[in-house]
Amino acid sequence: MIYSVPAALDSNDALELFGRTRERTGRLVAPLRPEDQMLQSMEDASPVKWHLAHTTWFFEEFILKPHVSGYVSPDDRFAFLFNSYYTQAGPRHARDRRGMVSRPDCAEVAGYRAHVDAAMEELLSATDDGAIAGLVELGCHHEMQHQELLVTDLLHGLSFNPLLPTYRDPEPLPVTSEVPLTFTRHDGGLTQVGHDGVGFAYDCEGPRHQIFAHPFEIADRPVTNRDWIAFMEDGGYDDARHWFMEGHAVAAREGWEHPLYWWEQDGVWWTFTLRGPQPVALDAPVVHVSYYEADAYARWAGSWMKGGARLPTEVEHEFAFRDHPIEGNFLDNEQLRPMPGSGVWGDVWEWTSSPFTPYPGFRPPEGALGEYNGKFMVNQMVLRGGSCATPREQMRTTYRTFFYPHQRWQMMGLRLAKDIA
Amino acid sequence: MIYSVPAALDSNDALELFGRTRERTGRLVAPLRPEDQMLQSMEDASPVKWHLAHTTWFFEEFILKPHVSGYVSPDDRFAFLFNSYYTQAGPRHARDRRGMVSRPDCAEVAGYRAHVDAAMEELLSATDDGAIAGLVELGCHHEMQHQELLVTDLLHGLSFNPLLPTYRDPEPLPVTSEVPLTFTRHDGGLTQVGHDGVGFAYDCEGPRHQIFAHPFEIADRPVTNRDWIAFMEDGGYDDARHWFMEGHAVAAREGWEHPLYWWEQDGVWWTFTLRGPQPVALDAPVVHVSYYEADAYARWAGSWMKGGARLPTEVEHEFAFRDHPIEGNFLDNEQLRPMPGSGVWGDVWEWTSSPFTPYPGFRPPEGALGEYNGKFMVNQMVLRGGSCATPREQMRTTYRTFFYPHQRWQMMGLRLAKDIA
Amino acid sequence: MIYSVPAALDSNDALELFGRTRERTGRLVAPLRPEDQMLQSMEDASPVKWHLAHTTWFFEEFILKPHVSGYVSPDDRFAFLFNSYYTQAGPRHARDRRGMVSRPDCAEVAGYRAHVDAAMEELLSATDDGAIAGLVELGCHHEMQHQELLVTDLLHGLSFNPLLPTYRDPEPLPVTSEVPLTFTRHDGGLTQVGHDGVGFAYDCEGPRHQIFAHPFEIADRPVTNRDWIAFMEDGGYDDARHWFMEGHAVAAREGWEHPLYWWEQDGVWWTFTLRGPQPVALDAPVVHVSYYEADAYARWAGSWMKGGARLPTEVEHEFAFRDHPIEGNFLDNEQLRPMPGSGVWGDVWEWTSSPFTPYPGFRPPEGALGEYNGKFMVNQMVLRGGSCATPREQMRTTYRTFFYPHQRWQMMGLRLAKDIA
Amino acid sequence: MIYSVPAALDSNDALELFGRTRERTGRLVAPLRPEDQMLQSMEDASPVKWHLAHTTWFFEEFILKPHVSGYVSPDDRFAFLFNSYYTQAGPRHARDRRGMVSRPDCAEVAGYRAHVDAAMEELLSATDDGAIAGLVELGCHHEMQHQELLVTDLLHGLSFNPLLPTYRDPEPLPVTSEVPLTFTRHDGGLTQVGHDGVGFAYDCEGPRHQIFAHPFEIADRPVTNRDWIAFMEDGGYDDARHWFMEGHAVAAREGWEHPLYWWEQDGVWWTFTLRGPQPVALDAPVVHVSYYEADAYARWAGSWMKGGARLPTEVEHEFAFRDHPIEGNFLDNEQLRPMPGSGVWGDVWEWTSSPFTPYPGFRPPEGALGEYNGKFMVNQMVLRGGSCATPREQMRTTYRTFFYPHQRWQMMGLRLAKDIA
Repeated sequence: MIYSVPAALDSNDALELFGRTRERTGRLVAPLRPEDQMLQSMEDASPVKWHLAHTTWFFEEFILKPHVSGYVSPDDRFAFLFNSYYTQAGPRHARDRRGMVSRPDCAEVAGYRAHVDAAMEELLSATDDGAIAGLVELGCHHEMQHQELLVTDLLHGLSFNPLLPTYRDPEPLPVTSEVPLTFTRHDGGLTQVGHDGVGFAYDCEGPRHQIFAHPFEIADRPVTNRDWIAFMEDGGYDDARHWFMEGHAVAAREGWEHPLYWWEQDGVWWTFTLRGPQPVALDAPVVHVSYYEADAYARWAGSWMKGGARLPTEVEHEFAFRDHPIEGNFLDNEQLRPMPGSGVWGDVWEWTSSPFTPYPGFRPPEGALGEYNGKFMVNQMVLRGGSCATPREQMRTTYRTFFYPHQRWQMMGLRLAKDIA
Repeated sequence: MIYSVPAALDSNDALELFGRTRERTGRLVAPLRPEDQMLQSMEDASPVKWHLAHTTWFFEEFILKPHVSGYVSPDDRFAFLFNSYYTQAGPRHARDRRGMVSRPDCAEVAGYRAHVDAAMEELLSATDDGAIAGLVELGCHHEMQHQELLVTDLLHGLSFNPLLPTYRDPEPLPVTSEVPLTFTRHDGGLTQVGHDGVGFAYDCEGPRHQIFAHPFEIADRPVTNRDWIAFMEDGGYDDARHWFMEGHAVAAREGWEHPLYWWEQDGVWWTFTLRGPQPVALDAPVVHVSYYEADAYARWAGSWMKGGARLPTEVEHEFAFRDHPIEGNFLDNEQLRPMPGSGVWGDVWEWTSSPFTPYPGFRPPEGALGEYNGKFMVNQMVLRGGSCATPREQMRTTYRTFFYPHQRWQMMGLRLAKDIA
Repeated sequence: MIYSVPAALDSNDALELFGRTRERTGRLVAPLRPEDQMLQSMEDASPVKWHLAHTTWFFEEFILKPHVSGYVSPDDRFAFLFNSYYTQAGPRHARDRRGMVSRPDCAEVAGYRAHVDAAMEELLSATDDGAIAGLVELGCHHEMQHQELLVTDLLHGLSFNPLLPTYRDPEPLPVTSEVPLTFTRHDGGLTQVGHDGVGFAYDCEGPRHQIFAHPFEIADRPVTNRDWIAFMEDGGYDDARHWFMEGHAVAAREGWEHPLYWWEQDGVWWTFTLRGPQPVALDAPVVHVSYYEADAYARWAGSWMKGGARLPTEVEHEFAFRDHPIEGNFLDNEQLRPMPGSGVWGDVWEWTSSPFTPYPGFRPPEGALGEYNGKFMVNQMVLRGGSCATPREQMRTTYRTFFYPHQRWQMMGLRLAKDIA
Repeated sequence: MIYSVPAALDSNDALELFGRTRERTGRLVAPLRPEDQMLQSMEDASPVKWHLAHTTWFFEEFILKPHVSGYVSPDDRFAFLFNSYYTQAGPRHARDRRGMVSRPDCAEVAGYRAHVDAAMEELLSATDDGAIAGLVELGCHHEMQHQELLVTDLLHGLSFNPLLPTYRDPEPLPVTSEVPLTFTRHDGGLTQVGHDGVGFAYDCEGPRHQIFAHPFEIADRPVTNRDWIAFMEDGGYDDARHWFMEGHAVAAREGWEHPLYWWEQDGVWWTFTLRGPQPVALDAPVVHVSYYEADAYARWAGSWMKGGARLPTEVEHEFAFRDHPIEGNFLDNEQLRPMPGSGVWGDVWEWTSSPFTPYPGFRPPEGALGEYNGKFMVNQMVLRGGSCATPREQMRTTYRTFFYPHQRWQMMGLRLAKDIA
């Protein structure tokens, strides 16, 4: 699960990372009222309050309980309530019932966080055990993942309120002009991909291994809303030729005719964002599209674009962008929506055509933390690149996130690639 | 919808009734935190916050808007959010998404209530229009129905929290001894049933009309938990002979083997109540059983009881008890659970074998208020008698409540009757 | 279950009835191929082959096995396969999987029928036991019920074939002119309803008992297709004011905008019948409408008709028509669809506003046959009058059939009634 | 779609292949009665009659209609009824309603086959157009795929009949002794995989392309029933540690505790086969397990086996076995069940850990035939090796079949592999 070289971090760094991470969560929650923190709009999403407690439980369960003798939890029953899916860490509360837990209330959860923060700070000030530092690093990266989920789950929850409440101040996006679509060529060949084990990474990012890549081209920017509207206007949602059979069935069943959160008003496309309802910004990357839609878009583009088009594989994405500095519109920006002018990193996660499978030689670690990624390696697709809801600090060029092909509520977009004949 | 003689109430009485009713709601909500008020555990149940706003909307929509010129709502969009099912009062928010509305928050809803209270008090102090008084009376009875729903919905919502939180102080029930089951005979014959139009009643309680009743016997007390456990121990849940075919299918599909909220612990039956988890009180009326279960119990009892047994009809219930004073364990008691020693009224609603159908000559009134009862007259069964969640003030001997045969979350129990050969 | 005076029938009559009934079934099946006999289009419907075997099993299980010593079934496993829902007659095959039984094939089922026919004839020639004659009568009426189901299930099954195959020769309906809608007045008062026990009747038709009827009017003919189209054209399906809340939800979910089996083609309404696709005959009774639709129609008619309108109760239907000779368009006609010019009996079953509940004093008989009707007395509505799929021989003025409010595949229509002020 | 070099087959060969293929289908259907041919037990499975007609439609639609001027179909509506999923070949009948089509009946479908056979033979005797020969080859391979589906769908359909009918004579499997599990090592490296375009192959088998394979070991025989029972007895189905999260959820929801069609009787495992119910043969390959189960088995084996264990990738399978002659227990054997002593090919399809994705450079052909494989390339897993239901003639070392991870009704088993450290 933890894949870094043990000595990557000392206790001091760990303490700083811990403080920074917990504090970022605090900032995210500050504008919310208790009522907002209770929303659970679907099984895939969790209430904000649950995210706050679950990330705290993670530190308690995997660090404080095993490493602090005499540690006492404020409530032993939290272990049951706030475990997510670690079967080896004991039974847990049903995932689709997290919104049914009004007690502990928000103030009590805040107390739980403070209690664990204090215990963690005490522990980290007193130890220089590299293994503990490694677990802290993992726990912080885990909390960063939940920071991203927290804001996307919140957006989903608020979207069911006909009043369309605003999380952060609305602020119109700058008007921009269209950025032409260009591609960069890569020759492929034998190369290494995956994480080399220096510094933190999740288990599924390694082992670093040799692969043979075929030559390809990859777009220099993601697909924009302007591009997507052309697809819509060309009947792309209806034309079964572009779609996976099951994707088209899902689209028909769900009535998809545009990205999630869009609606048309007086001939203009609007969308609901964490900054409230806004007109769709034409030159920002399209967001909230499923893999089914992304693939259909790529096939549609391939039907008229010179040299065809398709989604890239995850290897191609890593190969193409591993030398680009990881800069862009991340959570730290507090824009909370994709911005025009996107290049490589940030703004939207990009669907790749790669199913989430283990790298050659992958073996999940023993124990509950080994469940972190390995048990999800079926039926999900890899996305690369990070988004406007991702803390900058958790990105790496080898980072693989993964979702089901029908899911749309994350900050999901796409980028085109091409074969070279 | 409103079936009282117009002059039943003057404005002064209406103002007092209004104050008393609104204040009772306030007392019910006082122990709750905002998080508790957000819970919506199923489509049939609504969040406490929604009940608070919806009952307020009712006064605004049907009294303030038509009768107070220049009345301004704090937010016009509340009409959409807090209409329940009155199609003639405009479109409304999806019933199963009420728990997704975090804004207006609890403080804003309290403000909405205060705003409407002030406007109502001003109106009632200035008018002596009997029609308005009649609407106030209806609005208060409507709010009393929602007081009952508020506590039963809350119980259902809290029951999904593994911590089993307590709404009111736990207080053990007195230990009592078994009350023997006796029956009272009635000769039947031609008689009048239904409301006579003097004083308030819902439309569906009238018109008063002639019926011919066959002679019958009716039990002097409801079925108790002790009785019910005998049914369970005799294999009553498994024996298809006692069940409606569809009832047995529902029981099998849902895994019913005891009333809702029960579990066994070390050989003792426990139940979850608004006063927290408690051992089942053997001589209190059984509660939280569906019509399917109630009917199966009656058939099971009829299979060994001398002279057979069955559920009473609603006419038999009214005929038998119309001269009994309406005293018993109602919401006003604040016990919030059935108590041992129950006689006729209060404690638990009693399932009758009567489907909820219109009385001869029934015609719903014109307009949105005509939707109050008439549109529910299919597939539901009548219950009589009131419960520990019913405000005493809204009971009448002609009162008909109604629920679907599979529903269990209300304070539902039963009483036996017999044919006379 | 069997409610006739035991001596109603002697063995000779029973033998004749048996022969007549079995032979009628044979005629119904004659035009079908084995493939047609396999169709099961929904859980509510059964394959023709299953009806053939189940009705045969009934004679075997309740007459031959208990009354013929040494009787040997062709296959002991048929008791499991062809029991429908008699839990006291042992376990049974899942109802929604009847279409999955290819063996015994049609020829083997025909052999089973012949085997039981021979044994029954031998028994009836040799006995004069009135109890056996009574069981034969019951078995024959049971088979008549399945004759009706057989043709309506077949129609439903064939309707899923885009080729719309024809069961019997198409034959255009005579062109007729509109029959004006008139009503007959009845004064009501104390009267007896239900079966008097002379001759055969089902248990649920008794006991005969006293009731008090209020004065009413009832239409002299059923609602016609012409009437129904006026309802459709007036927006009746969309206007929630006319509908039960749950009825309107079902209609929306299922997309109902006209009776089952209808479609529009070049401005003309067509329907699929057992005689193939045909234009809707304007002056024939409307058929294949649910209770929800029938009630909505009646409320719509009541909204503009002088003196209002509603569905009749089953008591009113019995009261009004008990002296009318039972003549009309029954199965014996082999029209297999409602015909213009309908009066009281035959053509379509008429939805009443009466839920199917036990008559006062009803008690189901002991044993498996006691399950015949009693276990269905919840959530279903009574229909009266018989249809073009009902054998004339099984009709009585007290006959109660019953279906769920959402069901449409039987030959279901309606007739209006009115209160008298 | 068709990937062979155009001149791979001349018309004479095509005619022979056509005759051989159609005749094999005829032999498969010979023991069936019309009733058997109607069974459709789930949406994934089709009635035998539909397979017979659909494979015939394929020749009509893609060869006779475009290439025989004046060709007349026996019924133009068959194109709608018997198209499976080719959206570019027009609208089509709902897949889950194929069992509802009793007409055309079996005799008429046989007539349809004869009609098309005659037209095809006439065409092939008169032409030497290589493109037509290529389409015939494709149509025959298509029909071979449906031969496999026909027998597995039939097994599934018959399994719902409590009488467990026998398709072919029961014949006990030879008693054998356990074959030890051995592995063969492969060094990997750069190599070519995929079809080279010489001779027939499906589009998804190419293009042949370079890959880099890591060293691995692969088992010399599939996992047997004996192995599988050890997994079951070790609690493998319950232990969440071995399972994908979603796999374990599916297993719990479906109640999986053993392979499909198994049951225990007096301490012995039995299974239902196309030769009727039989005791499970311990040393035959396990069959009718889903990908979820196969993967859980492999992880369980990896938890105690020296050097770990996992499923192979499809590239490893191809790499390891491309030089093994394709001999084994195929459909031609008429055993219709896996046999003890299995080596590489035949008996059971083997789940690989490879999702079904396009090979680098893959591009589906234009037109309806391009839908053959490309539209399924999401959420499905590749199986390799062929089974006892696969015609020998359609196997190649590059053959990729694919199914969803939850599916079990095909002849699906598995083989283990290992990393080399």
